[in-house]
Amino acid sequence: MSQKASRADFEARLRQVGALRYHDKHPFHALLHGGKCTPDQVRAWVINRYYYQCSIPMKDAAFLSRVDDPALRRAWRSRIEDHDGHGENEGGIERWLRLADAVGLDRDYVASRQGVLPATRFAVDAYIRFVRDKSLLEAVAASLTELFAPKIHADRIAGLLAHYDFADDRSLSYFRRRLDEAPKDVAFGLNWVLDHADSAEKQDAAVAALEFKTDVLWSQLDALHSAYVTPARIPPGGWQPGSHLARVQEPCL
Amino acid sequence: MSQKASRADFEARLRQVGALRYHDKHPFHALLHGGKCTPDQVRAWVINRYYYQCSIPMKDAAFLSRVDDPALRRAWRSRIEDHDGHGENEGGIERWLRLADAVGLDRDYVASRQGVLPATRFAVDAYIRFVRDKSLLEAVAASLTELFAPKIHADRIAGLLAHYDFADDRSLSYFRRRLDEAPKDVAFGLNWVLDHADSAEKQDAAVAALEFKTDVLWSQLDALHSAYVTPARIPPGGWQPGSHLARVQEPCL
Repeated sequence: MSQKASRADFEARLRQVGALRYHDKHPFHALLHGGKCTPDQVRAWVINRYYYQCSIPMKDAAFLSRVDDPALRRAWRSRIEDHDGHGENEGGIERWLRLADAVGLDRDYVASRQGVLPATRFAVDAYIRFVRDKSLLEAVAASLTELFAPKIHADRIAGLLAHYDFADDRSLSYFRRRLDEAPKDVAFGLNWVLDHADSAEKQDAAVAALEFKTDVLWSQLDALHSAYVTPARIPPGGWQPGSHLARVQEPCL
Repeated sequence: MSQKASRADFEARLRQVGALRYHDKHPFHALLHGGKCTPDQVRAWVINRYYYQCSIPMKDAAFLSRVDDPALRRAWRSRIEDHDGHGENEGGIERWLRLADAVGLDRDYVASRQGVLPATRFAVDAYIRFVRDKSLLEAVAASLTELFAPKIHADRIAGLLAHYDFADDRSLSYFRRRLDEAPKDVAFGLNWVLDHADSAEKQDAAVAALEFKTDVLWSQLDALHSAYVTPARIPPGGWQPGSHLARVQEPCL
């Protein structure tokens, strides 16, 4: 039976999950950030990642629906606002659709979530269900992949700006905004997990939850890579390259 | 708005889903049945497919838990017995572990479900949840991939016997048994769907459910192929070739 780790050691163990398993180690990211993706590979990423983006507020609502502490609900609620919009802020989902415009896709098609790879759906849906079914501690721990996100967003902005004509402040506004939003969320989530994982068993569960979440992210890139890079075998129902482009737009990739 | 199809046309439409999307079209099956899989690729298939096998009775129990008609529950219950065993019948899960023995794997490792690819878990878990959450009609319709299974089981028995030393009556007993069991189940399920899909909308929902199920199966082979064939990139946590072999057994592949 393992012993409860100190707060610092437990935090180090959580961070180690990212060092070993976060999807910035996946080859698709190197292709994307290095400018090696074809226009259609970028589009496939935009279409599939949209499914993740637009599911996140449902995940957060599932979390809220299980929290009986108003203070925790209040602290968490901004995540939904960040994605769905609030007042002047159009929200992360709308910003993602701006990226869809910029890469020449029909935004209504992207928003319809048709053509999303089945493996993407299964992985993302598994995350919503995880948050609905597991302990609150595990649900918050699963959100801690945001610990590792600022670096990937910064790399992505730099890489896309350097390599793709479609990339500019407007099309990449999703990522810039996340650089501001994510640190606040993750500082709260990390402290909450460090406070509430008050036994070795709970620490193990939190680490397993974070590993689960890295699997959710990794599986999405594996599905993209397998369908559109190597061996480039698109499963039945997946988006076909060249289809569902915006009608009036100049090609911008 | 579409019109309700005749019983015969609706059945043809269901069968067409298999013709277009069933996983016998996936290249991994051609490799396996043609003797082109390495021993470790066969083992990876056995490990991952076990996760599906051992989840099926949970799926069927989720179905039973939602049925208020004793006659339907009685007709459906044999599916659980077929997998979990009953009296003299050791059940399909035990027969699958016999296949794990035959390919030289540590059966306790296989039964532990460690090393299963995350994408396999997500797909299979999505199926259990689908049956728990959707209408009974959609749940039964999703089971109709068994319409297409007898051919794949027969091909598999012939292909494995022809190409692999481990294959014999004992190790392949799972597939032989399913050749007897599946036709009874699927005849019942097909008739139930044909009887209960009494509107165009319900017929569409049944077809979509069957498509969903083909996605569940296809995604499992995509995950296997991507991890162990091309590009042979094993995701974090996936089984490592050469590991968890049975200690005392002669190599039999």
